[in-house]
Amino acid sequence: MGEALNGLKRSIMCGEVRESHIGQKITVMGWVQRNRNLGGLDFIDLRDRTGILQVVFGDAISKEAFEKADKVRPEYCIAVTGEVVRRESPNPNMPTGMVELKGQEIKILSESETPPIYIKEGLDAAENIRLKYRYLDLRRPDMQNIFMIRHRTAKVIRDYLDQNGFLEMETPMLTKSTPEGARDYLVPSRNYPGMFYALPQSPQLFKQLLMVSGFDRYFQIVKCFRDEDLRANRQPEFTQVDLEMAFVEENDVMTLNEGLIKHVFKEVVGVDVALPIRRMTYAEAMNKYGSDKPDLRFGMEITDLSEVVKNVDFKVFSDALANGGSVRALCLKGGADMGRKDLDRLGEFVKTFKAKGLAWIQLKENEIKSPIAKFLKEEELSSIIEKMSAEKGDAILIVADKDSVVFQSLGQLRLELAKKFDLIKDKNEFNFCWITEFAMFEYDEEEGRYFAAHHPFTMPMDEDLEFLESDPGRVRAKAYDLVLNGEELGGGSIRIHDTKLQEKMFKVLGFTEESAWERFGFLLEAFKFGPPPHGGLAFGLDRMIMFLGGTDNIKDVIAFPKNQNAFCYLTEAPNIADDKQLAELGIEVIKKEDK
Amino acid sequence: MGEALNGLKRSIMCGEVRESHIGQKITVMGWVQRNRNLGGLDFIDLRDRTGILQVVFGDAISKEAFEKADKVRPEYCIAVTGEVVRRESPNPNMPTGMVELKGQEIKILSESETPPIYIKEGLDAAENIRLKYRYLDLRRPDMQNIFMIRHRTAKVIRDYLDQNGFLEMETPMLTKSTPEGARDYLVPSRNYPGMFYALPQSPQLFKQLLMVSGFDRYFQIVKCFRDEDLRANRQPEFTQVDLEMAFVEENDVMTLNEGLIKHVFKEVVGVDVALPIRRMTYAEAMNKYGSDKPDLRFGMEITDLSEVVKNVDFKVFSDALANGGSVRALCLKGGADMGRKDLDRLGEFVKTFKAKGLAWIQLKENEIKSPIAKFLKEEELSSIIEKMSAEKGDAILIVADKDSVVFQSLGQLRLELAKKFDLIKDKNEFNFCWITEFAMFEYDEEEGRYFAAHHPFTMPMDEDLEFLESDPGRVRAKAYDLVLNGEELGGGSIRIHDTKLQEKMFKVLGFTEESAWERFGFLLEAFKFGPPPHGGLAFGLDRMIMFLGGTDNIKDVIAFPKNQNAFCYLTEAPNIADDKQLAELGIEVIKKEDK
Repeated sequence: MGEALNGLKRSIMCGEVRESHIGQKITVMGWVQRNRNLGGLDFIDLRDRTGILQVVFGDAISKEAFEKADKVRPEYCIAVTGEVVRRESPNPNMPTGMVELKGQEIKILSESETPPIYIKEGLDAAENIRLKYRYLDLRRPDMQNIFMIRHRTAKVIRDYLDQNGFLEMETPMLTKSTPEGARDYLVPSRNYPGMFYALPQSPQLFKQLLMVSGFDRYFQIVKCFRDEDLRANRQPEFTQVDLEMAFVEENDVMTLNEGLIKHVFKEVVGVDVALPIRRMTYAEAMNKYGSDKPDLRFGMEITDLSEVVKNVDFKVFSDALANGGSVRALCLKGGADMGRKDLDRLGEFVKTFKAKGLAWIQLKENEIKSPIAKFLKEEELSSIIEKMSAEKGDAILIVADKDSVVFQSLGQLRLELAKKFDLIKDKNEFNFCWITEFAMFEYDEEEGRYFAAHHPFTMPMDEDLEFLESDPGRVRAKAYDLVLNGEELGGGSIRIHDTKLQEKMFKVLGFTEESAWERFGFLLEAFKFGPPPHGGLAFGLDRMIMFLGGTDNIKDVIAFPKNQNAFCYLTEAPNIADDKQLAELGIEVIKKEDK
Repeated sequence: MGEALNGLKRSIMCGEVRESHIGQKITVMGWVQRNRNLGGLDFIDLRDRTGILQVVFGDAISKEAFEKADKVRPEYCIAVTGEVVRRESPNPNMPTGMVELKGQEIKILSESETPPIYIKEGLDAAENIRLKYRYLDLRRPDMQNIFMIRHRTAKVIRDYLDQNGFLEMETPMLTKSTPEGARDYLVPSRNYPGMFYALPQSPQLFKQLLMVSGFDRYFQIVKCFRDEDLRANRQPEFTQVDLEMAFVEENDVMTLNEGLIKHVFKEVVGVDVALPIRRMTYAEAMNKYGSDKPDLRFGMEITDLSEVVKNVDFKVFSDALANGGSVRALCLKGGADMGRKDLDRLGEFVKTFKAKGLAWIQLKENEIKSPIAKFLKEEELSSIIEKMSAEKGDAILIVADKDSVVFQSLGQLRLELAKKFDLIKDKNEFNFCWITEFAMFEYDEEEGRYFAAHHPFTMPMDEDLEFLESDPGRVRAKAYDLVLNGEELGGGSIRIHDTKLQEKMFKVLGFTEESAWERFGFLLEAFKFGPPPHGGLAFGLDRMIMFLGGTDNIKDVIAFPKNQNAFCYLTEAPNIADDKQLAELGIEVIKKEDK
């Protein structure tokens, strides 16, 4: 066992020692970054959360201390008392680089075996090792920095919402299964064997009930759960900044949240977000960028060529148009230089999004090169070039199909080209945009029914209410997403607060009146007692921290994350349970049968 | 459906309107508390989170508005625009009582059926009705006030800890089963069918790992879970203020938390807590108050009579002493007047705590009355009276048994007498006390082994380390509880940070080396890499809010609580799960077999 503190107190953090402390006696505590014996002196770089301080021991001061210092190795945890002196060879790259600590006493608080990963920035170790030894991985300064950002972000969010009249309120974790969303995590009940709670996918219904309860403005930074196959940058448990306001319309919620975002980015990373944030309808976003979360850090908008090519005698175009689809294209500046191989690769790329292929026209210096040129009359070709505002040196990249395929393939192609041709000039830009007037429903062809695009509690736009039952596909919702650099940062909506309309909504979604009441009776019942108009929004906190912390790996912003199989390398959860406990819960594990 | 806001915005909250607003046009929104038609005028008390404002409609202003106002009923949700005027008959009991709103326009945002409970303070409705219509129960001003206190408390805790260098960090909810504690809630895993996560009973091991990770000071306001039979004032999910500090000893943690408590009580309820908070060893608390959470708002300490009665020829006393027990007593001022029935009732009371009975001595004006007088020589009786500092008019109440029974029965009797004789004079007093030097282990006679009194990660006191294996019962822990008015507000300890010592601890608790490593290998492994000395504490937030909000019912401080069977009356969780989903999880519900 290491030495005990026995009343010894730290007087200052390592990274905070400056020239103003010269001559003072201080005590610091932390970890040995490295230890070198040079010319009879022992130099220890001592690290804590705030940074590194150089400590020097010479045996002129205390032979005993010198010998102890001489034997400490990396990641030993030590306490050093001594005098701050000016450094003979200053290091201007370190905040503490003008001084060093002339060690007088040293305590070895605990020893360390050789750590399996290096404690340094920008580590490139295998992920499973980093996760298994997470407590060492988290000692790395870049990881420490991210969690300081995470703390700071949550703090300034709370400060801002508190100042704006929001109450933070806790909603249940052991609750009832939610509808239409992802798969719930279940929790068996012991009091009611064979029955289950669900962990919340979001506090949606509870926050609406809090509005019915008259709390006026609610927020919560809260864990949510989804038992889904984990795509990259998803975790089974994640954190939402969840908020709801009574007596508001779309604009009120968006304006409040713009203020919040501006505050956060200013306070945490010193970035000024210009307000108001640009707003774009869902229709415009799809038409121009083929995405409901467009990356606006570069242009290259999609252009609709349907009108221009409507008489072209090319089966791919005419079939698409005849089937209610469209012909649309991107104009890639400088794309005329691409070779055949590159073009073929782009063709393969769009096929992964179900496009049948990519037609292209290259405007080379002295010729126009295109596999579809033979189908185009001269004036059709010029019309296309004109419509695309294409110039010599450009390439026009065309997809013809039904709209959903055209949008997705060109939207993704646009992002792919931005990467390939480095179209995003300012890597530090934060480009925000609201997307509004979302479609209320998405039609699932396999299941042959409509699903709520946002969720079933979203209020339709007033002017589309009349189509709710007759033509759900054209109903737009009072929903809005906040998009940052092509990623969804948050989203929300104005909610239904009327029993009849909510019942109608469930009906469109395929619920019988009985099944709707069985699952959501408490909400439908609550709306009978003077519910206020209300709406809200939820931000993904993990995603926000990824932006603020400058990482594109969600595992970097969660202290103890799980892997893609929802397995924890550190604790080795999940694991087997006690049969007796399972029996109390009224469940048993299904035995694999022998064949 | 009610009327839409259509751009109408609230300009002020109901409870904030004052004389300074007279002459201004305002818009308020809220719920109808009551609606009276008096002398051709319509008076509406309009309520929101901040209070009530009187609104008056006369048909001289707008016949249409008057008619609409006339028909609204309690709990209708409305918006009113009008002019603030001086009230003809002021009501000095209301903050808004000097003014009223002369209504010009009214929107009925939604109607209400007659609510099943009254929306008023101090409601005495059946609990299941209050919980089923929780959204109405929460509209009551006293409930609204509690949740504003809860928000404010969490906020000032975060502010204080942030200012003191703590980082709020999130720990996993889907984690591994913890030891030695209550029963875990389990969560079946889909990726590993037949295996389970556990919901955390506390973030204990993760916060220790965060100290190993070098985060220095951690806190979290976090949901924790225990699947226990619910005693009064327990909930299956509850909230902890959880914190941990590196490079500290007991005194550092206690001092920091005293500052936190002082800040919270000052900021939230304006109470000055005098520092430092009194400290008392566990031994002293048991000896004087028969409890490790003594209520110090009144005296009446327990006195040990063992020495005084050691030669008394009374079998109950001599047996107790011969078996290593003790004879102890309370002196109740004014207790000489109690009748036989009352004394018998106290005798029954102590029997519920396993005492064999209660001996008593009443010092009446002219005589001493006692059923045990016949066993006592005159000088023995005087010695008892002298030892107890008893005076005429008092009663001495004696229990003889083994210490654990004596302490519990007299400790509980002390509290019972305080209630019965109204010994707590200042009902608003907040009397804090630290209890220190807890016993490390409790011996379970049924299981024939030691259990950790706090938890297995608590550091023993240095001077008792040598007895860890030879005589665990005498080992005291570096643990401390904060007690307020006889309730435990929080508790914590300095932790073990040494693999060898931690292994030894597990051994005392009956783990084999293999089983200890299987369950806690990640912690034992982490201690190999320079763990810092560390310790921490956790407060029960719900309990704290009960004190600050002035309620003795935990359901009042949780927005959506469950009943004693962990059932939610509102959502009717838990409920049955889909067989397909259970199959994916590799579990099935055990069918009740026919007999």
